[in-house]
Amino acid sequence: MIQRLVEGIKKTEAPIVVGLDPKTDFIPKRILDNNLAKYGESAEAVAESFFEFNKEIVDNIYDLVPAVKPQVAMYEQYGIPGLIAYKKTIDYCREKGLLVIADVKRGDIGSTSESYALAHLGASKVGNTLVKGFDADFATVNPYLGSDGVKPFVSVCNEFDKGIFVLVKTSNPSSGELQDKITDEKPLYELVGSLVEKWGAESMDGAYSNIGAVVGATYPEMGKVLRDIMPHAFILVPGYGAQGGKGADLVNFFDKDGLGAIVNSSRGIIAAWKNEKYADPSRELLGEAARKAVLDMKEDIKGALLNR
Amino acid sequence: MIQRLVEGIKKTEAPIVVGLDPKTDFIPKRILDNNLAKYGESAEAVAESFFEFNKEIVDNIYDLVPAVKPQVAMYEQYGIPGLIAYKKTIDYCREKGLLVIADVKRGDIGSTSESYALAHLGASKVGNTLVKGFDADFATVNPYLGSDGVKPFVSVCNEFDKGIFVLVKTSNPSSGELQDKITDEKPLYELVGSLVEKWGAESMDGAYSNIGAVVGATYPEMGKVLRDIMPHAFILVPGYGAQGGKGADLVNFFDKDGLGAIVNSSRGIIAAWKNEKYADPSRELLGEAARKAVLDMKEDIKGALLNR
Repeated sequence: MIQRLVEGIKKTEAPIVVGLDPKTDFIPKRILDNNLAKYGESAEAVAESFFEFNKEIVDNIYDLVPAVKPQVAMYEQYGIPGLIAYKKTIDYCREKGLLVIADVKRGDIGSTSESYALAHLGASKVGNTLVKGFDADFATVNPYLGSDGVKPFVSVCNEFDKGIFVLVKTSNPSSGELQDKITDEKPLYELVGSLVEKWGAESMDGAYSNIGAVVGATYPEMGKVLRDIMPHAFILVPGYGAQGGKGADLVNFFDKDGLGAIVNSSRGIIAAWKNEKYADPSRELLGEAARKAVLDMKEDIKGALLNR
Repeated sequence: MIQRLVEGIKKTEAPIVVGLDPKTDFIPKRILDNNLAKYGESAEAVAESFFEFNKEIVDNIYDLVPAVKPQVAMYEQYGIPGLIAYKKTIDYCREKGLLVIADVKRGDIGSTSESYALAHLGASKVGNTLVKGFDADFATVNPYLGSDGVKPFVSVCNEFDKGIFVLVKTSNPSSGELQDKITDEKPLYELVGSLVEKWGAESMDGAYSNIGAVVGATYPEMGKVLRDIMPHAFILVPGYGAQGGKGADLVNFFDKDGLGAIVNSSRGIIAAWKNEKYADPSRELLGEAARKAVLDMKEDIKGALLNR
């Protein structure tokens, strides 16, 4: 699976994933009002608005980037209707040829982790029929429970040709409370990085493994160290844009050939229509603004990689 | 909210939570075959079987224990139909007067963690209407992202009178890979334990905080240390029974007055009908066997607490 992401990045020349993390604040009035009129003040109204919002963005960016990353929490917040919109979003993005990284940050032990892996990446046998859950291409995984929690995901990746990104160093300010703690003379995130490289050894697909890592754009020095510790792990980099990461911060996450990393931006793209830089906010030009923001981000990263 | 759990434990004299973690292997043939005939080989057939299975167990144990703990992964595996069965299970258990601990092990940052908290414990405003997601009483939370990931849950607990259990030391064999690592001269799980006590300080409800901890029955010595580090945290103890924990291992998790902990058993109760000790497996006496297994577990824990 990771090879498909590499090919997508080469084809689009954009190591960019668009985070589809809708919030009611980001939804243009024309979409939300229409659904409130149709469904009343309900989870259904928000969920259908999320899907229409995503669709308008995807229709305008699917030719520019290889992948999208829906954050399941935003949908889960609205219960079953929200998760139906999440599933419809995944299916629509895959129809448009995009790879889908399910940002689910799941992690448990043994057969429970296997259930999560089957839910988001695999399929379950019911009699002689294979039944799919959410059927994304990649998922994010939390490593706090150790190998018992991650290996069932690796098995499912191998069986269904899928991939995961394991949280190594997250982009948030308090990520250091646990992740930076020094243990055996090095920070915990380096230990997790070594484990990712190890877990990934049996899941190679081309130059990279299907088992990748999440490392926040907000910690570029740590990115440099982790790039060396995990030579076969593709790095998913959140924290660009709204969280403070800039193109110049990103060069450390990439290999010499400009591969090995993919950078996520959510708010900076999906809420670009509210930013006067991209469009008159009153015109609610969701898709057009998102497209401009992606092109800007592409230039920012390209420039940073050329100038390093 | 935690006070309601304490009262439930006092009333039933059972510091026991029944894990509603259905798997197709645990479902009696009479239930599964009926739903396969009705819905074909589909996620719907499994999901409806899960709900009927849970209902039969709950009907036979709701007067014996204060709480149940559905493991969402088992339901998520079957996509939207699975999650509908999960929601129906929560609602049914609450109707029967049981407290529901949603074993979701969620955790992310900032507004994303807030979305998870609202999804599982709170409600979201749509216009002037409050829309609930899954509406459990407690949820389990993964601490790998630090305070940024946990505090939004604490806020939601305070707003909606709910509780969480933060993973501190999990019951699985590889939990030590990260959690036991020595940092600042003590293992990481002790650091997380201290954080739980700190996070919980602003969410007190009686003698305990609404912010509790998960500590596996399989590590009783660590349970002893953690009981001291977190005097106000209620401890949710998984790993009893099938994972190897016995009643005698559990005394360390309790306070002197026999409170402060609640022990989970899943397979040992919900699959008791397959165990000849409780019933003739061919008769598929799901509810009757579950009831006997709960009573056995109650005696085991009571005996251990008396003999300590």
